[in-house]
Formats: sequence, structure tokens, C-alpha cells
Amino acid sequence: MWLAGLEWPGERGLSGHSDGDAVAHAICDALLAAAGLGDIGGMFGTADPRFSGAHGEVFLAETVRRLAAAGWRVGNVSVQVVGNRPKLAPRRAEAEALLTGIVGAPVSVAATTTDGLGFTGRGEGVTAIATALIVPASGRA
Amino acid sequence: MWLAGLEWPGERGLSGHSDGDAVAHAICDALLAAAGLGDIGGMFGTADPRFSGAHGEVFLAETVRRLAAAGWRVGNVSVQVVGNRPKLAPRRAEAEALLTGIVGAPVSVAATTTDGLGFTGRGEGVTAIATALIVPASGRA
Amino acid sequence: MWLAGLEWPGERGLSGHSDGDAVAHAICDALLAAAGLGDIGGMFGTADPRFSGAHGEVFLAETVRRLAAAGWRVGNVSVQVVGNRPKLAPRRAEAEALLTGIVGAPVSVAATTTDGLGFTGRGEGVTAIATALIVPASGRA
Repeated sequence: MWLAGLEWPGERGLSGHSDGDAVAHAICDALLAAAGLGDIGGMFGTADPRFSGAHGEVFLAETVRRLAAAGWRVGNVSVQVVGNRPKLAPRRAEAEALLTGIVGAPVSVAATTTDGLGFTGRGEGVTAIATALIVPASGRA
Repeated sequence: MWLAGLEWPGERGLSGHSDGDAVAHAICDALLAAAGLGDIGGMFGTADPRFSGAHGEVFLAETVRRLAAAGWRVGNVSVQVVGNRPKLAPRRAEAEALLTGIVGAPVSVAATTTDGLGFTGRGEGVTAIATALIVPASGRA
Repeated sequence: MWLAGLEWPGERGLSGHSDGDAVAHAICDALLAAAGLGDIGGMFGTADPRFSGAHGEVFLAETVRRLAAAGWRVGNVSVQVVGNRPKLAPRRAEAEALLTGIVGAPVSVAATTTDGLGFTGRGEGVTAIATALIVPASGRA
């Protein structure tokens, strides 16, 4: 399993686009949406063999590059992860440092559960909700 | 089915308030909440016959008008749609142009799935999560 | 049941951390994440006996205090509650006034449903999604 840019040995991988890193994908979608540049499916193509198996940092770095080309820089990003597994808390700082380095702006990662309810509560999958603030590249934060 | 201000011929309609346009309703809720003006249920009334069957643009236009009356204008809105159907990608630009025109500020629409999990993954319904940035009508963006 | 800082007599309590107030917890997580200060689990500890049974205002007040100590003040917070029960509409203004007082900045509370779908639609639980805007304590809003 890959999540939040990290490999989680012993965890069952998530299905989904490329490596299934729902956190990285949510950040890409939030950034692209904020800039009016579409979404990750439209930008990278779920069927494009160049991206099959690619890790989140590939998508994140390219997303940030496209925002810059469009005149935007990232202010900050906040991601809420919902699910039972993996336990993010012990590696939260590591994930934030990695993602912040890739994005070039503060990325925070918070974790919560649905207390046993729904597919996230049954451990079948995780949900990630990201919110991004972007600013004109020439502007002030 | 009506979604994101568009009609989707051949798709089963969504239940819910008025025409069930979860995207339009989420945008209204995000805008009203940002301005401290309540929510769509409180403003329009789920039982008010004037709005039964109304399309999203009616609610959106009235929402924007109420924000303006309260001294706010819309900075931008980002909506994340979660579900298998309809396939938004081919009409994403159309939806964004329509919603942007109604709202009078950039509206982005991104689409994702839950990879077969939960009611959105089974195609039973769609979820829409909107985030809005508003600014004082007299202020700078 | 405690939700949005209010007691709801006759409603079955939510499971979860402390008093299970998903709205208060979502606000804490959004604020902490925006400031890069972690999340409520890391800050308060789900096993810390000092917080077992504590109500949302305890966590909210402490969260705001920590943001202030880190140089941030709250701009505003918007919470979307998803669920059938309790019916928030009749007490929405009360909840907003209470939460706004604790947070020291506008807090809006909006309510919606998933129209019978999923665990929120079956009335098994509620979901709360909060978005927070914070600003440097010395800065302008």
C-alpha cells in the first residue's frame, strides 16, 4: 500500500488509479480544481500507460509544475484521511514533511475514522478530502 | 437526471430536493455557509412548492443574489463530485462554463470515484463536496 | 447525544472520542490542520483520561488557544453536517452562536442528508466536514 507518498509494508494495497494513493490524488485534485485546471483524471488519464504504477509524487510534482505555468503557487494544503488502516498517527510527521517538500508549501495530514460505520469504518478503504489555497505567483500570501 | 446544472439524458434521476442536483446544492450550501447565511434547506425550504422541481440555476442565482445583498461576492468555488455515474469528464468544461456563468466567478468541477466502495461506488448515488471562497464586495480578491 | 456543542435529549449518543461530538471534532481537526499543528487525536489523545467524556467546547477552546500560541487567529469556519438525525435546522442558529462564541470567529453550520443512502442515510451516524480559514494573528483578515 502507498498512501500519503509513503509505502506501508504489510498493508493491503488500495485499488484505484496508478498506485492508489488516495491522499496524493486528493491533493492533486484540490490544487487543479483551485486553479481551474481540471482534475487528475483529465490531466493524467487513467488509461495512460506512462502513469500506470506511478507514485503520488510524480503526479504531485507535475501538478505543481502546471499550476506554476498557469501563474499560481500553492499557499497550503490540508488533507483529512478517513479510515481505520493504516494508522497514520505514527508516520504523520513523516508524511507531512515528504508532501510539503514535493508541493513546496505546507501540507497538513489529519486522520480520523467513521467509528466502524460505512466502508471506511469496516476497513475496506480510505477516503481523503483535501482543501487547497493557492495564490497568484506574483502575489503575497 | 440533472447534475451540475446539466441534464443527463438516459441517467436515472437522483432523489433529493427539487431536481436532485447535488452539485448545485452543494455550491449553494458552501456559499451560504461561508457568508453565515444558513443553508439551502433553511433558505428555500424543502417543502416550498415554489421550488419543487426547480433546477439548480434557480437556487444558485438566488444564493449569489443574497450574498451580494449581504455584502459578499464570490471569489471561486471548487466542487468535487464522487460517484460512478454519470461520467462527468466529457462534459466537465460545459458544466464549469455554465456554473461559472451563473455564479459570476470561477467554478471548478472535479470528478472521482470510490473504486466500487460504498453507495457512491455501487452507483446508487453521487456525493458532491463544495468549497467556496468569498470576499467582501468592496474588497480585493 | 452531543453535537455541535449542544445536547440533544432523546437522541441516541454517537460513539467516538470523548462525547462523540463529530462537529466539534471536525472543527478542531480543520483548525489544527490549517495551522500545521497535527490533529485532534495527536493533540488530545483518544486514551487520555483527562478528556474522556469531555465536551466539544473543551477541545475547541484548547485548539484555539494553541493556534494563538502559534501565531494564528481564526478567520472563519464552515461545517457541513451530513445525516438524518438529529434535525439540526431548528437549532442551527443556537449551535452557530455557541460555536462562534467558543472559537471567537464566525462558525457556520449547514445540514444535509444523503437521501437514504449509506450509513448517514440509514441514520446510523452523522458525518461532519469542516473547512477553516486562519490568518496570522498580526495580519488583516
